[in-house]
Amino acid sequence: MNIPMHNDSKKKKAEILCVGTELLLGNILNSNAQWLSLQLASLGINHYRQSVIGDNTKRLQDAVIEASNRCEILIITGGLGPTPDDITTEAIANAFDTPLEEKSKLWQEIKEKISLNKSSIALSNRKQALLPVGAEVIPNPTGTAPGIIWSPISNFTILTFPGVPSELKEMWKDSAIPWIKRHGGTGSVFISKILHFTGISESSLAEQIPFLLQQENPTVATYASLGEVKIRITAQSNTAKEAEEILLPTEQQLKKTFGNYFYGTNEDNLASVVINLLRKKKETLAIAESCTGGYLGKEITAIAGSSDVFLGGIIAYSNEVKRQLLHIPSELLLKYGAVSEQVVEKMALNTREKLGSNWAISISGLAGPGGSAQDKPIGLVHIAIAGPNGCKLIQERFGQHRGRLGIQKLSVLRSLNELRILLHEQS
Amino acid sequence: MNIPMHNDSKKKKAEILCVGTELLLGNILNSNAQWLSLQLASLGINHYRQSVIGDNTKRLQDAVIEASNRCEILIITGGLGPTPDDITTEAIANAFDTPLEEKSKLWQEIKEKISLNKSSIALSNRKQALLPVGAEVIPNPTGTAPGIIWSPISNFTILTFPGVPSELKEMWKDSAIPWIKRHGGTGSVFISKILHFTGISESSLAEQIPFLLQQENPTVATYASLGEVKIRITAQSNTAKEAEEILLPTEQQLKKTFGNYFYGTNEDNLASVVINLLRKKKETLAIAESCTGGYLGKEITAIAGSSDVFLGGIIAYSNEVKRQLLHIPSELLLKYGAVSEQVVEKMALNTREKLGSNWAISISGLAGPGGSAQDKPIGLVHIAIAGPNGCKLIQERFGQHRGRLGIQKLSVLRSLNELRILLHEQS
Repeated sequence: MNIPMHNDSKKKKAEILCVGTELLLGNILNSNAQWLSLQLASLGINHYRQSVIGDNTKRLQDAVIEASNRCEILIITGGLGPTPDDITTEAIANAFDTPLEEKSKLWQEIKEKISLNKSSIALSNRKQALLPVGAEVIPNPTGTAPGIIWSPISNFTILTFPGVPSELKEMWKDSAIPWIKRHGGTGSVFISKILHFTGISESSLAEQIPFLLQQENPTVATYASLGEVKIRITAQSNTAKEAEEILLPTEQQLKKTFGNYFYGTNEDNLASVVINLLRKKKETLAIAESCTGGYLGKEITAIAGSSDVFLGGIIAYSNEVKRQLLHIPSELLLKYGAVSEQVVEKMALNTREKLGSNWAISISGLAGPGGSAQDKPIGLVHIAIAGPNGCKLIQERFGQHRGRLGIQKLSVLRSLNELRILLHEQS
Repeated sequence: MNIPMHNDSKKKKAEILCVGTELLLGNILNSNAQWLSLQLASLGINHYRQSVIGDNTKRLQDAVIEASNRCEILIITGGLGPTPDDITTEAIANAFDTPLEEKSKLWQEIKEKISLNKSSIALSNRKQALLPVGAEVIPNPTGTAPGIIWSPISNFTILTFPGVPSELKEMWKDSAIPWIKRHGGTGSVFISKILHFTGISESSLAEQIPFLLQQENPTVATYASLGEVKIRITAQSNTAKEAEEILLPTEQQLKKTFGNYFYGTNEDNLASVVINLLRKKKETLAIAESCTGGYLGKEITAIAGSSDVFLGGIIAYSNEVKRQLLHIPSELLLKYGAVSEQVVEKMALNTREKLGSNWAISISGLAGPGGSAQDKPIGLVHIAIAGPNGCKLIQERFGQHRGRLGIQKLSVLRSLNELRILLHEQS
């Protein structure tokens, strides 16, 4: 057994350790780790490491001893069931040379639960009533596997929970939260806010805010995904209200620095922002999609209440549909091709007129992998936005390397963002 | 620096280390760890531990050194971007007291990629061309962050990848798989095959194959997701050919047991299967979507080559569009409502006629959360499939608990599956 050596910070530090060979085999997604991370953040517990170990007593024992050298609170999930591969309780007892003892009251409760479910009581279930000497039981209201709260050495406490998410969550709320508030809390609260940006790269954005990225409270971090960059601001203080006050100036500074590149907060996305802008103006939208084939409509109608402003549209995938439903003249298609500013302009204007909307977006491009021509490479996309003051044309070369789905997604985001900018300019 | 001590087994052991404070804060789910776990399993690499570390150089450095004492292959994802909190490359170089050097060819490539996207080149991007002396580059075809393959000490190799899942996956397939096959293999080969089923629940499926689920080689495991169940069969042997032979009887037995519930293999999805069936018959498809708002079109056009069979369609979100573009009589809408078999039937028939396709799918339903009526609950969806032999009508109650996105997705999958069944019946 190692001797724990606690270091620098006075704040309680936690780690999460998930036990289960099914996680290592990739059979299930580790959603427990994410859920627990959010819980720890909201309780103001610092959390620097997560681990996953299979159903192996020796390796789990080693991982528990290592963790005891780094943190004060170790949250373990999984491996509390009745089968031979459930080894968590035994491994942590071994790690601290502590014998197991049967909690007779617990065994009684487990037996009652099993007979309630009309299952026969297996001897293996008895194992679930064996806990390390000195451990406190965390009752499991819905399952048979109890958890424990146990401090085998000073300044180090292990909390165990079943891997079944619903049982974990209930037990966490009933037992862990009160315990952490009594013993583990820093007294401080974390508040996070996400700001969304588009039209600017992560690196260009980061270069303009070197001081903010070095700040300690609130912290500022950037995350890129296809077509957008997010900035997360996290403030820490004694109360939620104070944390929000600490966060605010940084939020304002970021919004001021990046102007119209900023488009939304937290759960916002480009579609929801555009729908809200249209709703405020009592204006409507219709669309005509070629290379995106319905993707734009899908993003818009994913938002509850989009029917307030969205009328519908035409998936003009073949040229025949462009001719027939959108009345694009054959000459135009022949002369300029379906992927041209002439054609998207006509698509947007005709859609607006035909569906009687205030705004219309049209998209036509080459998503690939086939279909490129010398002057029209894969990734070339034309977008038109028809509105009360005419039609704005956008040409974009997203590049073949984005792949079909990337080109489709970037086209949808770009078209929504252009409409967002036009709606802002108008107001 | 610790001295690595290699232990018991002769088989190569791997660990996965995911870097990112966003994981520790619970902002994102660690799907990369699951994906990599499946990859390692399919390559026959033993994998005993996963860890998550935040964007902190010292803690990451410690974690890398610890891993070098336990395993031969360390897969790291995340922290390769251009911003100050991207510290992975620096931390692993520090761990083995190795300086970084600029790869000038790599820097050239990064600059070219950035200018293609018309972003300004930030000095911070230059950091991405700095790699530990002796490391080999893993090219990143779609992003700017390259990975590395580096053996800082004997019997220990680090492979790094960006945290962006699409970039990780592509780079893994291009570079890691060939490298592992050359250097890391166990001598035995795992072959996996995924079979896709729809229209049957995971438990009904599992109940019919208890013996297969207990089998040791090949193993059989079920995975449910919204609207479908997958079965993964994994066989292990000395050669790929032998493993495939071991796998085959189980595959055949599963297909026989579940008949038409089985719809595809490996990368297949319902849209790709339907497109292939239509292509074989040289038939075409058009669609009319109300509550799914373009989702069906998106799924179809996500498949490369869908233009061979897909003409396009109408997003008839408002009743006005249903009247104007689809010529649905106002009386029908008034008498039965937009969510009725009478209206979807007319939508499908008119779409087929107007667009001149062999087949037409129409969908109209209540995705919620608003808009329910006494006789029409949220989750009620009508689907019609018009074809050469008439029109098939389907009514489904997916239930409000599925949520808006769930109801939309289930409607799309159900409509594709009904067309798949009709195409099979016809042939």
